[in-house]
Amino acid sequence: MTEKIKGINLGGWLVLEKWMSPKLFEDVAAEDEYYLAHDLSESEYKARIKVHRSEFITETDFLRISSAGFNLIRIPVPYFIFGDRLPFIGCIEELDRAFNWAEAYGVRILLDLHTAPFSQNAFDNGGLSGVCRWAQMPKEVEFELTVLTRLAERYKNHAALWGIEVINEPITERIWKTMNPQKRYITRDLKLAADSAPISLEFLKEFYKEAYFRLRNILPEETVISFHDGFELHYWKEFFKENDFKNVMLDTHQYVMIAELKGTPQSLEAYKVYLDDLGKQIAEVQKYVPVFVGEWSLFNSYTAGVDTKGGINPTQEEFLDKKTMSKNELAMTYLELWNASVKAWNQGEGHIYWTYKLNIDTVNEPAWYGWDSWDMSRCLINQWVDPMNDIKY
Amino acid sequence: MTEKIKGINLGGWLVLEKWMSPKLFEDVAAEDEYYLAHDLSESEYKARIKVHRSEFITETDFLRISSAGFNLIRIPVPYFIFGDRLPFIGCIEELDRAFNWAEAYGVRILLDLHTAPFSQNAFDNGGLSGVCRWAQMPKEVEFELTVLTRLAERYKNHAALWGIEVINEPITERIWKTMNPQKRYITRDLKLAADSAPISLEFLKEFYKEAYFRLRNILPEETVISFHDGFELHYWKEFFKENDFKNVMLDTHQYVMIAELKGTPQSLEAYKVYLDDLGKQIAEVQKYVPVFVGEWSLFNSYTAGVDTKGGINPTQEEFLDKKTMSKNELAMTYLELWNASVKAWNQGEGHIYWTYKLNIDTVNEPAWYGWDSWDMSRCLINQWVDPMNDIKY
Repeated sequence: MTEKIKGINLGGWLVLEKWMSPKLFEDVAAEDEYYLAHDLSESEYKARIKVHRSEFITETDFLRISSAGFNLIRIPVPYFIFGDRLPFIGCIEELDRAFNWAEAYGVRILLDLHTAPFSQNAFDNGGLSGVCRWAQMPKEVEFELTVLTRLAERYKNHAALWGIEVINEPITERIWKTMNPQKRYITRDLKLAADSAPISLEFLKEFYKEAYFRLRNILPEETVISFHDGFELHYWKEFFKENDFKNVMLDTHQYVMIAELKGTPQSLEAYKVYLDDLGKQIAEVQKYVPVFVGEWSLFNSYTAGVDTKGGINPTQEEFLDKKTMSKNELAMTYLELWNASVKAWNQGEGHIYWTYKLNIDTVNEPAWYGWDSWDMSRCLINQWVDPMNDIKY
Repeated sequence: MTEKIKGINLGGWLVLEKWMSPKLFEDVAAEDEYYLAHDLSESEYKARIKVHRSEFITETDFLRISSAGFNLIRIPVPYFIFGDRLPFIGCIEELDRAFNWAEAYGVRILLDLHTAPFSQNAFDNGGLSGVCRWAQMPKEVEFELTVLTRLAERYKNHAALWGIEVINEPITERIWKTMNPQKRYITRDLKLAADSAPISLEFLKEFYKEAYFRLRNILPEETVISFHDGFELHYWKEFFKENDFKNVMLDTHQYVMIAELKGTPQSLEAYKVYLDDLGKQIAEVQKYVPVFVGEWSLFNSYTAGVDTKGGINPTQEEFLDKKTMSKNELAMTYLELWNASVKAWNQGEGHIYWTYKLNIDTVNEPAWYGWDSWDMSRCLINQWVDPMNDIKY
């Protein structure tokens, strides 16, 4: 890709997060996919999941994404994609179809291995909230590597494959303390969560070397292998050169809502200062290794009208205190934020929005007001974004 | 509504048709919703249906339809909407939410009672293929009337309610012979289908009088009550005046693919001749009663590249003989057909497209080539239609 990456994540499709599809979790205690599969009967879990996969993302969405001017789709996939980890149901056929849609509509795919058995981050998006034990289990580390190589073998000659990302958001020491995922997400089984701990940067470097070695052996030279920064953007500057990695990219995830947790004030002006600084940091790292922003969102507390505390949906009671903007003011604010963000991200290789689609109802459940900016399909209709006229720097 | 009706049907959402959502019918013998509910276990049927209803149409679709310039949404609903006909699952909560979406995004709703127990047409869209016995069962005729009055009571004061349509496509003698639904759709249970017969126009007149009387008693004067023409556009000219009906409209469904069954040649020029003539017929009927085209589609054999025999999806083998057009030629042909159609329909009160969305995969199952024109969400992306610049006559 000689142009900048202008991408969208297909979040909530093959890897579930309850807040992105609350209806899928209706009438069940489960807060994540691990418990959805365990709480429901086999046939009911299968029925829900198969209909969701066939309807949440369809051929039309690939047509729409391509027509809107995006050139890349990052697809989060689970470790059980090949159907060999019961009770979870594989989804490789769904991914096969998506590759053909991408080719037909002229967009490329970045495959993102988004979860690991016993989780790499204890987030809900790791599939098992409050648990982070994968890196401590050598057999599961090896299993994760076999998922990567099987994906590489399957798609290495497919015209739509742009790259493979080794593992999503492995949590390291500092962010483990800042985000405190075991407190933030409900840990249902304390025994299962026992000995959970952040992943050391030392472990991550060894895992990345092994994954790179195995993938580069399979993939053509022009296929990118990408690595999440473990929330430590500056840590990796020398790593890739030292180890002579070819055609790799560093993926960094940058959310305004997380910046707010770290002290960025809740105003458009403050967001722009934060983004401008981040653009400089990306430009600095880009001198060492190509870097893209693989997840980001317009979502923020200022337009949501409430302190989101890092993306916590307010209750109906808290919603009463929300400050809502006029439609025009909202559109102008988002567009200004979009432009400032894209300007920053394009100091590197480009950007991939989180996410294409959410199934939330802001009309009947008004506490979701403002959360619709997570949904690029809505951003496009509302003209909160301008992907056709990207700022070039 | 002082402007012309410019609407879209939400087909395949609360009333299922297998060809519109084939994945929903995967791994089950059922060809229609009746057998989907009977072939699956209660919990599996519920799981599939609830996820489908929550994902096939969402708030975003109402935003998208409104933003595209449409002013009306016709929502087909089943006779079991109130959940009192086991094993079917009611969907009144889904409809409640849709009414609020419509109000929030400034579009109006035409409620369309699309099915009846034991069916009014033996079509797949009646929910029970090959069976047409409803009109012969006085208790079920009465039940259908109570569904109408319950809907009227529930939404009579809702700002989004534009009208209620009494029953969709009751099949009368002539079309029963032309379409031959018992041959066209598989009749699974010959005992259940025994004594199936077309509905007489005499019965239909009496039913329409009773339905009008009960609904007009409940609904405000400004709420439209509409009646399908039973595939006999010219039959109804005097009926509404004779019976002193207030604020009623006649709904006629006009498909190019059905015109083909009756002999219209498969070419753009022939379609335009057919549409021009139909526009004159609509203008003629409009002198007696306001008439709108409540279902129509750009779908036709010429752009599909194969004789569709009234909408029969070709097999993969037949597909090999298909003639596919260039992307540009396809777009130009559809746009010309859109303009000719809208010009004809606007001789009356306006038009409502069938349908907003289909879940078919034209890339991985290329026999669906051409069937994507049924899907207004794709027509909009492909710019095959131009709802913002309606032809005024």
